[in-house]
Amino acid sequence: MIETRLTKRFGIDAPVLCAPMALATGGRLAAAVTRAGGLGLIGGGYCDADWIAREFAAAGNTAVGCGFITWKLAETPGLLDDVLMRQPAAIFLSFGDPAPFAPAIRAAGVPLICQVQTLADAKLAAGTGADVIVAQGAEAGGHGEKRATLTLVPEVADWLAAHAPETLLVAAGGIADGRGLAAALMLGADGVLVGSRFWASAESLTAPGMTDAAIAASGDDTIRSTVMDAARGLTWPGRFTARVLKNPVTDRWHDDPTGVAAHAEEIAADWKAGWEAGDPARANTFVGEAAGLIRDRPPASEILTGMVAEAEALLGGGWNRSRA
Amino acid sequence: MIETRLTKRFGIDAPVLCAPMALATGGRLAAAVTRAGGLGLIGGGYCDADWIAREFAAAGNTAVGCGFITWKLAETPGLLDDVLMRQPAAIFLSFGDPAPFAPAIRAAGVPLICQVQTLADAKLAAGTGADVIVAQGAEAGGHGEKRATLTLVPEVADWLAAHAPETLLVAAGGIADGRGLAAALMLGADGVLVGSRFWASAESLTAPGMTDAAIAASGDDTIRSTVMDAARGLTWPGRFTARVLKNPVTDRWHDDPTGVAAHAEEIAADWKAGWEAGDPARANTFVGEAAGLIRDRPPASEILTGMVAEAEALLGGGWNRSRA
Repeated sequence: MIETRLTKRFGIDAPVLCAPMALATGGRLAAAVTRAGGLGLIGGGYCDADWIAREFAAAGNTAVGCGFITWKLAETPGLLDDVLMRQPAAIFLSFGDPAPFAPAIRAAGVPLICQVQTLADAKLAAGTGADVIVAQGAEAGGHGEKRATLTLVPEVADWLAAHAPETLLVAAGGIADGRGLAAALMLGADGVLVGSRFWASAESLTAPGMTDAAIAASGDDTIRSTVMDAARGLTWPGRFTARVLKNPVTDRWHDDPTGVAAHAEEIAADWKAGWEAGDPARANTFVGEAAGLIRDRPPASEILTGMVAEAEALLGGGWNRSRA
Repeated sequence: MIETRLTKRFGIDAPVLCAPMALATGGRLAAAVTRAGGLGLIGGGYCDADWIAREFAAAGNTAVGCGFITWKLAETPGLLDDVLMRQPAAIFLSFGDPAPFAPAIRAAGVPLICQVQTLADAKLAAGTGADVIVAQGAEAGGHGEKRATLTLVPEVADWLAAHAPETLLVAAGGIADGRGLAAALMLGADGVLVGSRFWASAESLTAPGMTDAAIAASGDDTIRSTVMDAARGLTWPGRFTARVLKNPVTDRWHDDPTGVAAHAEEIAADWKAGWEAGDPARANTFVGEAAGLIRDRPPASEILTGMVAEAEALLGGGWNRSRA
């Protein structure tokens, strides 16, 4: 067992959160992570009320939280209140200003977790009274920005220690095993948020062909791009890109935004068909640089148990191969 | 004391190398790091034979290595032999194919350290018989690529464990204090290469105004760009960018390569004048995201001693604030 301020605050056994990955973290995965000792968060992402209701039902009586893409939530009035009535274990907001939503979350007595990608946004999140700040590095899969986990986490830790010492800090981006968990704790995090590794779990809603592509890939094979959002007609703010596996779509269009605009309908139709077929060559596989550390698709409980055991061994001195 | 395979192999007290930063790591800084218990490497970078001779003289009798920009070394026949005759503690190659130089280095009995930015290049470097592979993440200052230290290090560690278990692994990029050192050891590194933190040491050749700018900056204030190389007329291969502090030069030109080409002479003249004046507004400050962790300009020995002491405390259990 690894006890930190995060495990104490949330009454959990392991300082590990499952990232609320849109279209991947359904109720089954979120609940599996909670039952294994961490905390799962349903990927409420693009704010489809029916999808969210179905996935909360799939989680059953297991405590899970819910995550939102903040700029999308701002376009979806009323949804936050619906979710708060379900008494989620936490609300997680990323990619936009959390301030308009913080009062309702606080009033409901639900912990607020804010994910940020810069020191500047960490300060803003702390100002809204976030209980937990997740510092997400660019190595993460899916949407994010440019800072790296390795520098962002200690820089945010220093700022919180001086200005908001009760606010917890969680590291996200590139953490897929016990080495990443142990490293994050050394950097000053109270725990980790794990995306890609749980994305490739048995319970994830990820398409099998995309999981296989990620398992075969190295972190070298990933790229941050906006082509996928253009193909889907999603109006993401310009500062955010998404990390995916490189494929013929990014090879052709990543460096050609003018071409993307000129061929928008054709690209969109083909990408959509590829996505529905789960085809990693025609649509994109949303996974982080940690793809290079992922070699199988086990149950989430096995991932979490293995991660904690490996971290415990490292923290107990197992890091030093010179002793061998 | 932190003993690892790296300290044993090089007969040093601390698993910390000072990066051979072109124009910053002179003989005085390299020797200070060696005398403090690590290993310093002179920044032979752009292969100016007179500069290198002067800095070896400045290191005196203290053992130091020498680093080169590999593609530049390939344009400078004879220089490697000159440096090998000085019996350097190691030769460090980064940014290009090390294969043409490995035989002469091996024949001289000098350890070969190859810095890489991808898993693919780590495999190539191992194939040349490198004694040490430095896995450098994009958070680093100066030149580099896109992978993050947090994922690249364990991915290379896994590959080396399976294919070249005697090859040592050093983490680089974003490591500026004991937290970063401890995290790197958890990720499977045998030690760390520290750039930015030593760049901002008393012995560094860094301009005072640029050091002050870095001390005032957050990691958010850095950017990877190619504007500086265009301004200097340096023909870096396209895959490499350099991390610097954002300033009016990058604000104006980073997104305008056509404009850079059209105004090349004017930009070059102004950048050169800015560099000679040490002016961080007119030339660029080469520092990594770790700028956000740098708050002073102490002697290198103080940096190294503090880093090791902090890492030792963390490795001994001090990471866990929940015990407080």
